Amino acid sequence: MNDDPAPTKRAIMEATYDALRERGYGDLTIQAIADEFEKSKSLLYYHYDDKEALLADFLEYALDEFMAEIRVGEHEPVEQLERLIDLMLPETIDEDRYRVQIALLELRGQVPHTDVYRERYAEIDRTLTERVASIVERGVETGAIRDVDVELEAELLVSALVGMQTRRLSTYEEFPIERSRAALYEHVERRLVAPAA
Amino acid sequence: MNDDPAPTKRAIMEATYDALRERGYGDLTIQAIADEFEKSKSLLYYHYDDKEALLADFLEYALDEFMAEIRVGEHEPVEQLERLIDLMLPETIDEDRYRVQIALLELRGQVPHTDVYRERYAEIDRTLTERVASIVERGVETGAIRDVDVELEAELLVSALVGMQTRRLSTYEEFPIERSRAALYEHVERRLVAPAA
Repeated sequence: MNDDPAPTKRAIMEATYDALRERGYGDLTIQAIADEFEKSKSLLYYHYDDKEALLADFLEYALDEFMAEIRVGEHEPVEQLERLIDLMLPETIDEDRYRVQIALLELRGQVPHTDVYRERYAEIDRTLTERVASIVERGVETGAIRDVDVELEAELLVSALVGMQTRRLSTYEEFPIERSRAALYEHVERRLVAPAA
Repeated sequence: MNDDPAPTKRAIMEATYDALRERGYGDLTIQAIADEFEKSKSLLYYHYDDKEALLADFLEYALDEFMAEIRVGEHEPVEQLERLIDLMLPETIDEDRYRVQIALLELRGQVPHTDVYRERYAEIDRTLTERVASIVERGVETGAIRDVDVELEAELLVSALVGMQTRRLSTYEEFPIERSRAALYEHVERRLVAPAA
């Protein structure tokens, strides 16, 4: 057994990703995740009793990975907003990623029955909105972004991003991804970017 | 048996609503819907073989009912947009409505497995976006709304509305509904309403 928990956790999370991709949420069992896990199955069962606890950790892990991609202050605020759009709404989405994302949409529908999912989604929502607000706030401070209401702007942007993801997942190839991306880019460029002095 | 199909269809749709409220999507069976149906159960089975066909009709019925609430030209365009916000994001949401909406979110997660759901969601998405575009377009024509790109504005508004609904359903009492509504109202008032001449 490995003493460092990080590689083990990463391997468990990757097995969970693979199992979600293969089976979706409805048919997922902890056994199916164990089957994708390359290390000892007893190690997985040692860490997790049930799939709810494992998936709650998976949501947290995915959030941490995502947040590491959009750290405040690493780039210019406007560039960061555009990067966020590209990360959440890439021009193309491959079959694997589609399958995992739709499995997570099914999981979202489980929140009334599973408190730990609801807590995680509340955390994801809060963390993402606060991050976007921090980016916009920094832009207002540096003068790159107009003097907008930071909180309201973050609500609007996060909602538009989540809405486009939800619409895209449920309409798939019919979703107007180019027009949606253009709508967000136009919003950032015309409504947020401060006019050149 | 009633010769007029309309009251029968309405009664079946109401039974479907009640069954979704009671059971959610996962535990729903056509038998459970028949149990909520006050008329002859054979009449329900005469119209529907399986729950997928029935739920696809339910989505269409719900869309028609919703669209009847926001007819283009019945009110001033800006008022209509505000009415749309109030309909999709009421300040409070009772337990029954929450349960049906979360059941529909679960159903959205079924689109990869059930073509008829995907077709219906694509239709809902297209119809709603076109309606919002028509309202904005009429506002631009009458001078009530600035000369915005109608298509992009409709994408942004519909996405923000769907995103707020999705976020609200998956975080429930933690969702900042007042701030989200304020973000949409502010967008309409500051970005869309034309300045007074």
